[in-house]
Amino acid sequence: MNLLLLEEADFVGPDRVVLSDRRLTHMQEVHRSAVGDSLRVGRIGGLMGTAQVRRLEAREAELQVTLDQPPPAKLPLTLVLALPRPKMLRRVFQTIATMGVPRAVLINSYRVEKSFWQTPFLEPEAIREQLILGLEQARDSVLPEIVIEKRFKPFVEDRLPAIVNGTLGLVGHPGDHPPCPRALTEPVTLAIGPEGGWIPYEIDLLGKAGLQPVQLGERILRVETAVTALLARLF
Amino acid sequence: MNLLLLEEADFVGPDRVVLSDRRLTHMQEVHRSAVGDSLRVGRIGGLMGTAQVRRLEAREAELQVTLDQPPPAKLPLTLVLALPRPKMLRRVFQTIATMGVPRAVLINSYRVEKSFWQTPFLEPEAIREQLILGLEQARDSVLPEIVIEKRFKPFVEDRLPAIVNGTLGLVGHPGDHPPCPRALTEPVTLAIGPEGGWIPYEIDLLGKAGLQPVQLGERILRVETAVTALLARLF
Repeated sequence: MNLLLLEEADFVGPDRVVLSDRRLTHMQEVHRSAVGDSLRVGRIGGLMGTAQVRRLEAREAELQVTLDQPPPAKLPLTLVLALPRPKMLRRVFQTIATMGVPRAVLINSYRVEKSFWQTPFLEPEAIREQLILGLEQARDSVLPEIVIEKRFKPFVEDRLPAIVNGTLGLVGHPGDHPPCPRALTEPVTLAIGPEGGWIPYEIDLLGKAGLQPVQLGERILRVETAVTALLARLF
Repeated sequence: MNLLLLEEADFVGPDRVVLSDRRLTHMQEVHRSAVGDSLRVGRIGGLMGTAQVRRLEAREAELQVTLDQPPPAKLPLTLVLALPRPKMLRRVFQTIATMGVPRAVLINSYRVEKSFWQTPFLEPEAIREQLILGLEQARDSVLPEIVIEKRFKPFVEDRLPAIVNGTLGLVGHPGDHPPCPRALTEPVTLAIGPEGGWIPYEIDLLGKAGLQPVQLGERILRVETAVTALLARLF
């Protein structure tokens, strides 16, 4: 936790917050905070800054906050991601938030096991929890938007073209394709497939929606690693 | 497991192997292999190729292998990494193997907790297990070399200069430094710090050994994410 994120409900005054949950525990056990100490804080969806500990008790802390710094810029990106397996999914949400992805669309794919859609990690509160962990890591205060699209074809045919419009459309896919471009500043729509990759029909449909295949070399990366590697290469 | 890795002890003839462990389970449960099927295989430290299933029983499989393809190239890199916390360490070993790092040196740092050095995940067999998982993911057959250097100063002063010699020496460090360079083809020595980063004394000593600080932007990445992001940016 490199940034303590504040919820609206924490505010007891314009510049005062009271904390009593895992953030208090973190202050006590990791920071070993004392009254008068300063901490880095951010208001979810708002500015970042510092907080001074005004009162610190076993079950509650009161902080006075000064929020005067903008959060770091997000990447100019929409990420379209075949739903990863549940164990991977939680870390992928953290990675998305940490790397500065502003919007991710989770879609189905032939090689996504049906059971993956039943995971409790897709509940809005579970998603938010992982995104918060990712933001705390990166020092960012703005939650990414996560969109769930269970059906591949209607999304790719009917809604993806409008997302791709005005952006560079790319799909990560191993094989004899151009290498992933580097150091872009323009907006990008990037699709990343499931374990085992997209099937040809899906690559074809993604291509019709404006996404061209690019590759990262012959090594096959786990989804989480592929997300990080592609974003670090692109921007 | 995108590649089935073969140990020397598996060979019962020049081109015959018998398997009976988790690789057999994987063939049965994931590949749902049958006699006559082909699988991608690699000989640890050697060539890669295909294997045909010749015999498949509940507790044992016999494969006929044809090894005729070189493994993918490694990166021209020595990675110097402050020892991550045990939970992260296992995934970092996988990432190192998957990304094609040929040699990694684990070192101490002021912000590495002493207890991390006690983890059983640093036992040679435990390291090898994670590296194998990473190679199976990437489709590579050559184990990275992992060097453990518990003492920062003797390593950085006495042995690191010889490693850096003839390479571009870099240390990932947040702050007002040049951005991490891109698309290098020359050999690199790259140091990555612990959670919380290097302390100024360490940056100073690494600098004297020939490593110059570079940064990846203002977001703070987990160690595993930083390894992937820096390698994807550099090469």
